[in-house]
Amino acid sequence: MLAAAAALMLGLGAGAAMAEAEAPVGKVTPFTLGNGLQIVVIEDHRVPVVTHMVWYKIGSIDDPQGASGLAHLLEHLMFKSFDAEAKESFAQIMSRLGAVDNATTGPDSTNYFQRVAKERLADVMAVETRRMSGLTLKEDQVLVERQVVREERRSVFESDPVKMLAEQMMATLYENHSYGRPPIGWAHEISQLKLDDALTAYRNFYIPANAVVIIAGDVTPPEVRLLAAQTYGTINVDRQPPPRLVTAEPEPIAARRVEMTDGRVPQPTLFRYYLTPSYRSATGLQAESLDILTAILGDGETSRLHRAVVTGAKAAVGVSAHYFGEGRDSGRLALFAILPGDGDLGAAEREVDRVIADLLKTGITEDELARAKAGIEARTIIESDNQKRLAALYGSALAVGRTVDDLIDAPNRLARVTKADVEAAAAAFLARQRSVTGVVAPPPQEAKP
Amino acid sequence: MLAAAAALMLGLGAGAAMAEAEAPVGKVTPFTLGNGLQIVVIEDHRVPVVTHMVWYKIGSIDDPQGASGLAHLLEHLMFKSFDAEAKESFAQIMSRLGAVDNATTGPDSTNYFQRVAKERLADVMAVETRRMSGLTLKEDQVLVERQVVREERRSVFESDPVKMLAEQMMATLYENHSYGRPPIGWAHEISQLKLDDALTAYRNFYIPANAVVIIAGDVTPPEVRLLAAQTYGTINVDRQPPPRLVTAEPEPIAARRVEMTDGRVPQPTLFRYYLTPSYRSATGLQAESLDILTAILGDGETSRLHRAVVTGAKAAVGVSAHYFGEGRDSGRLALFAILPGDGDLGAAEREVDRVIADLLKTGITEDELARAKAGIEARTIIESDNQKRLAALYGSALAVGRTVDDLIDAPNRLARVTKADVEAAAAAFLARQRSVTGVVAPPPQEAKP
Repeated sequence: MLAAAAALMLGLGAGAAMAEAEAPVGKVTPFTLGNGLQIVVIEDHRVPVVTHMVWYKIGSIDDPQGASGLAHLLEHLMFKSFDAEAKESFAQIMSRLGAVDNATTGPDSTNYFQRVAKERLADVMAVETRRMSGLTLKEDQVLVERQVVREERRSVFESDPVKMLAEQMMATLYENHSYGRPPIGWAHEISQLKLDDALTAYRNFYIPANAVVIIAGDVTPPEVRLLAAQTYGTINVDRQPPPRLVTAEPEPIAARRVEMTDGRVPQPTLFRYYLTPSYRSATGLQAESLDILTAILGDGETSRLHRAVVTGAKAAVGVSAHYFGEGRDSGRLALFAILPGDGDLGAAEREVDRVIADLLKTGITEDELARAKAGIEARTIIESDNQKRLAALYGSALAVGRTVDDLIDAPNRLARVTKADVEAAAAAFLARQRSVTGVVAPPPQEAKP
Repeated sequence: MLAAAAALMLGLGAGAAMAEAEAPVGKVTPFTLGNGLQIVVIEDHRVPVVTHMVWYKIGSIDDPQGASGLAHLLEHLMFKSFDAEAKESFAQIMSRLGAVDNATTGPDSTNYFQRVAKERLADVMAVETRRMSGLTLKEDQVLVERQVVREERRSVFESDPVKMLAEQMMATLYENHSYGRPPIGWAHEISQLKLDDALTAYRNFYIPANAVVIIAGDVTPPEVRLLAAQTYGTINVDRQPPPRLVTAEPEPIAARRVEMTDGRVPQPTLFRYYLTPSYRSATGLQAESLDILTAILGDGETSRLHRAVVTGAKAAVGVSAHYFGEGRDSGRLALFAILPGDGDLGAAEREVDRVIADLLKTGITEDELARAKAGIEARTIIESDNQKRLAALYGSALAVGRTVDDLIDAPNRLARVTKADVEAAAAAFLARQRSVTGVVAPPPQEAKP
């Protein structure tokens, strides 16, 4: 239940990475209940299904020091007995309703989603309402679930050297901010997580005023208003969540590097992360410019990195670039190259650095700018066409404090970005002292002396 | 007022680094007051002076997230008005008493010390008693002192690229523990520190049950008992400090590297830190073995690193090694090489790694073991002969939970360390995945493309 978080950390999953510059398809209607719950209706009448998501503004950055993984453990626990009278578990109810459901915990937020036939929406909302107000937990459930999460960490992360490298890179990129801690938690801390801490987090953060509900699909705002009044609106909790801690990174001053060898990787792999603002934390058009810059560097076979490193120098068999701009406090521009089995990491890195130095020196072309914008627009259209992804886009953005207007205006902001904006973003953020380079390679065939 | 902390972070100042295996000269008498205050008397009747130290078990690891530098700011504030009726500042009183006084804030503890003529000890204890129970602060003092500390950071740390490198290395070595944050605080957080947080820290931690007083010099235990009863003993605070958070590092799995270029460094400089246990956190004879290992590697011109890297390969003009074993939760073994102005960092690093690989492969000799022990014993004798250093050794050790017996037994433990112990420590802790390598060099003469 951490797929999105894993993708966030890795900078890999193009599918899970959310487009940031969306032109929403369908009418978007936000409203707020008296108890503070934000609701956003996204109409999509093509098929009689509904995607229902609850986003809580609690993520791994809210985990207390020494208790990394707490928000994620709580997410797991939310699938256990959710009120004292419940005869079925949450999972059993979802199964009975024919719902596809899951949850993810990220650095900034935790979300629960269901996809159901539209007739079942009222039931789903009723169940999530109970879960928002009536979680009950027993010590033994926590003991079991800690082991489940520990095993999840083992099977999803520790089994994959590339993910472990990414985890180490995040810990190195962030010298002060909790983004440096893995959302799933450090192994030795997962097994120490406490029921009391989970319940405190639940009481503090799982309240209407700290949640955003996204309902996308074959529904109308009046229908949703009525259902919401009958369900979420009945939660009489008027307290506010505690202030969320915002720690800032010190200004980066040193190029950093993380190196691993692991017999399980068949090919040497090279990453580069640059610390950047996020859409939420950026000023002006920085985030849009970083999105464009990323596309120019690494989106597709005509991108600069692909042409230079793969087609030209043949130093890598694949390259990609992703801008992670969805965070509340900061983001990162990530480059990735996978080498042939006998590839030379030094050579690949030199090529990557040559491409960046060249871009910084000579700038970008108007043609590249136009193509990058077109590519992002196309991605936006594709994303917007996917009900779940569109719902997630709104949910994740609102959960970090962005607004519906902000998202609706995204295409306009993208269109306004100039060549000079992109070059300014490159100059500001593609500096080596803002970066962490990560490499993982098979061990040398002969042990070094 | 952060000299010791700076030395801790840098792994440089041999003077400030405290010997860990002491054979105390003079009689050591510990006792505890009814309010929980620990007092240790170290007799030294050679000259009629006394070193008086108060060690509080609060350091930068206790700084709240986002408020790095708080313990250190509080240390500064302790020199302001210390009770409502005070006509003189603390500094004015010390001057009147002819005391040499200062304070340091480290990761684990904060200490205040005075050196005075023995007749003044009662006065000093009376003043520290008032300071332990009656600090008063005004908002404007905090505003001014934040600027003072910010300037201290600028002049002591930011002006020195090697110290900035060390700060970055600590932030990289520690992925989870607060040892990764500079005791003086990140620049952007120093300027946000709050009066209320400082007062909370004072109330929580500046209490008898959380302090250790070391009195070394021309005094007897009965004299000190009497004075203590009249001064510290009058503090009627029986509350305990809040539990101090202990976060553990994840098991290190990646070799890390920090690189800086800076026009202010005349010569390329190479550091290596290995994460190790401390005397407090080690099991068995690990810490003593690391002390010996460090001496074999880098103590003096006959050490392995000096012979190989300086005398042999001429890849560096100086090398040294230090084991920082005084921390509560962990320590580090630090290597340091300074190169000629036109030196080759890659060559120097290869030589260092060759020395380590060779030690891991062939072990150490009995002769090296004996010489290292003799060197540490000699250092111990020299340290113990210095009243202030001996007092600081006891104070810093007791402040992290070690005991007087533990320190008195140190020479015996050192003597028991075998060749196999040292080799086991080397195998366990000199692994690249436990390390951060740091380099700082002048920028290349010609700008790179």
